[in-house]
Amino acid sequence: MFESAELGHKIDKATYDAEVPKLREALLDAQFDLAEKPKFPVIILVGGVDGAGRGETVNLLNEWMDPRYVQTHGMGEPSDEEMERPMMWRFWRALPPKGKIGVFLGSWYTWPILNRVMGLTKTADLDQSLERAKRLEKMLTDEGALIIKFWLHLSKEKQEARLKLLEKNPKTRWRVTKRDWEHYKRYDKFLAVHEAVIRHTSTAEAPWIVIEGADARYRSLTVGKVILEGLRKRLAEDDKKKVAIVRAAPLLPSIDKLHILKALDLTQKLEKKKFAEELEKYQGKLALLTRDPRFKNITVVAVFEGNDAAGKGGSIRRITSAVDARQYQVVPIAAPTEEERAQPYLWRFWRHVPRKGRITIFDRSWYGRVLVERVEKFCSEADWMRAYHEINDFEAQLERSHVIVVKFWLTISKEEQLRRFEERKKTGFKRFKITDEDWRNREKWEDYEQAICDMVDRTSTRLAPWTLVEANDKNFARIKVLKTLCQRIETAMKKIEVK
Amino acid sequence: MFESAELGHKIDKATYDAEVPKLREALLDAQFDLAEKPKFPVIILVGGVDGAGRGETVNLLNEWMDPRYVQTHGMGEPSDEEMERPMMWRFWRALPPKGKIGVFLGSWYTWPILNRVMGLTKTADLDQSLERAKRLEKMLTDEGALIIKFWLHLSKEKQEARLKLLEKNPKTRWRVTKRDWEHYKRYDKFLAVHEAVIRHTSTAEAPWIVIEGADARYRSLTVGKVILEGLRKRLAEDDKKKVAIVRAAPLLPSIDKLHILKALDLTQKLEKKKFAEELEKYQGKLALLTRDPRFKNITVVAVFEGNDAAGKGGSIRRITSAVDARQYQVVPIAAPTEEERAQPYLWRFWRHVPRKGRITIFDRSWYGRVLVERVEKFCSEADWMRAYHEINDFEAQLERSHVIVVKFWLTISKEEQLRRFEERKKTGFKRFKITDEDWRNREKWEDYEQAICDMVDRTSTRLAPWTLVEANDKNFARIKVLKTLCQRIETAMKKIEVK
Repeated sequence: MFESAELGHKIDKATYDAEVPKLREALLDAQFDLAEKPKFPVIILVGGVDGAGRGETVNLLNEWMDPRYVQTHGMGEPSDEEMERPMMWRFWRALPPKGKIGVFLGSWYTWPILNRVMGLTKTADLDQSLERAKRLEKMLTDEGALIIKFWLHLSKEKQEARLKLLEKNPKTRWRVTKRDWEHYKRYDKFLAVHEAVIRHTSTAEAPWIVIEGADARYRSLTVGKVILEGLRKRLAEDDKKKVAIVRAAPLLPSIDKLHILKALDLTQKLEKKKFAEELEKYQGKLALLTRDPRFKNITVVAVFEGNDAAGKGGSIRRITSAVDARQYQVVPIAAPTEEERAQPYLWRFWRHVPRKGRITIFDRSWYGRVLVERVEKFCSEADWMRAYHEINDFEAQLERSHVIVVKFWLTISKEEQLRRFEERKKTGFKRFKITDEDWRNREKWEDYEQAICDMVDRTSTRLAPWTLVEANDKNFARIKVLKTLCQRIETAMKKIEVK
Repeated sequence: MFESAELGHKIDKATYDAEVPKLREALLDAQFDLAEKPKFPVIILVGGVDGAGRGETVNLLNEWMDPRYVQTHGMGEPSDEEMERPMMWRFWRALPPKGKIGVFLGSWYTWPILNRVMGLTKTADLDQSLERAKRLEKMLTDEGALIIKFWLHLSKEKQEARLKLLEKNPKTRWRVTKRDWEHYKRYDKFLAVHEAVIRHTSTAEAPWIVIEGADARYRSLTVGKVILEGLRKRLAEDDKKKVAIVRAAPLLPSIDKLHILKALDLTQKLEKKKFAEELEKYQGKLALLTRDPRFKNITVVAVFEGNDAAGKGGSIRRITSAVDARQYQVVPIAAPTEEERAQPYLWRFWRHVPRKGRITIFDRSWYGRVLVERVEKFCSEADWMRAYHEINDFEAQLERSHVIVVKFWLTISKEEQLRRFEERKKTGFKRFKITDEDWRNREKWEDYEQAICDMVDRTSTRLAPWTLVEANDKNFARIKVLKTLCQRIETAMKKIEVK
């Protein structure tokens, strides 16, 4: 795997000096074209062995390219903020938008490699990390990203020579640390793990480019040219002609017309007095739970989806009014902002993943991908088909970092929806709540029903189950929501006691 | 995940009787269209819980469809033959060709699930098995296969009722075994593992279709309709319009023109006398090694690739003349047969994976995909780009089942090749060895060089390294090959001693 990167590649000064001005100009041109028509983001990972010139390469890229369109991220030890969230959160928040280039010095590979070499993890753990990395990269490239992964390599002899050379020069001495020499001692172990990483994660969509790091001119020129050709190729492509292939059989509606929504008993009701009692009971419970010292170790992500006019807002307010305002955040999901449209669809949700001790309530969510975007054909079949897997993966990552994911689908009947629409039209202060779009959606009732059923079938897991809420009676729905939320928090809290 | 499959789905007899004839006719029609123009194979997995009707479903499919185009595989305990090869070998040899339907009762999921439920493996092991399954399915669908995965589900109550019902009837009593009841006792454990499996492996290309198994009519009709719609959709597609998207930056040749082939010293020679001595030495060694009792536990797969006229045949003969004829097999790889063209490209190599105690020598190999098929554009860029990963995966599977993979690239210079071509033209009995194609390939020398370098860079691993053989001198090459082979076998044999 490293044979080509141990041949002693070299570029002489004259060639380098002649090539660099042309390369820089071409890179700036390509960068400008990318910024002009921001069709895709560029994600550049710079990995490799110590002393192979990773830092210098990143610095050079910043020198050669227009810094307005390049973001550099040195990914060292995670911060407190980052430690309280899933491992990938720090990378999500650093992703470049379409039209820009993100350069990562240290990536989702850094810690899995180090931990394995230091013996803190087993091969199976490394494999799991690599699979996670592959899933992330697959999703990013499916969303259009150009990922270029550079691996700067040095043979053992060259690494030793390089570290000694840096140490000898007073100007560069500071760059060689004790840790570099410790890593050098483990060269063979590192090599074995590096090879496994490159072998497992050199995929068709994001292959590693292994480059000999010993000669700075060779290394720099190669990196520059690979980026240039990558940019040029993608810029020249007509994205409209490229439609992802769907290989699966179509998802069919149930043949006996029975489905989970029909199986709900929408006649369930809660009388006013009973409702008041229950509301007091569960709001009180929620207030106590969220003020419990153990709640500091708990994170809640609550998702509200439902038919138009099903009463999501009302249910959410019954939660928030019981919780300290500093603890919760409600994220209403409407059409994505310009900034959000320039990112993979999950980005706008990742950015709101809360720290510990907090509750984030999504009023509509990432499930828009498999609901409105599917039904209205805002995305292709291939896009929403892969979304189930991506969403389960996202929620599994949340769950792995001990986030409670509570998902509510509020159901009302078609008749009840009509009644509420009419009422909204009539009532002055509610009129703004009803739009033409709501009426249009209503015409696609059956399409939405199938999308909802497929969604529940494919994303209701024991880690993050869907709770279907019968919402023809608002009071009944509100109590069911509150009660479910309390139960989930209680269950999680009990586990903390056990520890 | 199983909510929809616990609703009590049912189809009444009248509806069923009215629907089935239409469905059967449509299925036969679709099957006929598929057989007429065999564009893709269909792989149907039937999994699920005991008593949910897996066997009946498979029987029914055989009844409804034309048995000439359906192959059914009940995958129970692996045979001795199968145990001596990588786990996936038994599935590879059962894959249906284009135009046919393969129905699998028991699949690559069966044993990973059972082993996990019975506590023989850990979650990390299960995850690894699932990733392997996903890679296989991804590769098959990338190669055009339609994969339909049915999961027949029963709630705990329904499973109990069903087993009791079968037991009560004298005609079906035999179908309920002690093992079924043992599995029933572990229902909850099974459910958790089943859910994990479905969540992890419901991909965009091969999603699971979960079906409630309690009502035979509902189950059968659903299975039939899903297959029908899957077939219809794929048959209606124009495959020519579907070109897989390449998301990666292009692979560039090395910028200083130095590469692994140029770095070879092709002047290396072995004088006649020295050659005779060495030949005797290493052929003797190989003879002893392959006759050693420990060799019964060793499997060797040797790959020979090289420039045209580099002397692959001669090197191979120096090996085979030292080995008992019952122990080795030479597989010459020319243009694929009709049967082979109807399968994924790796199929023709999987079928020759040897048992223990055997050596299989491939004269040209799966590397054709990233050499001739790439250079001659016999496959798309997306196809050969993904092949590196698929090939590494294939070889890792071989290595996991203790197969020694030895890969030789025989290099000659362009001048030496010309000399040999001319000689072949002149020499009567060698004339058949030189064709117009050889001359045409020669014109693409540089393209082949890049393909070879990329191949070595991306597939030379410590599990299965490439040995580059300087072959301008035939004697030198032959000894290097023999010596390398002996070394690899010796190393493997020493490990057996240690055990």
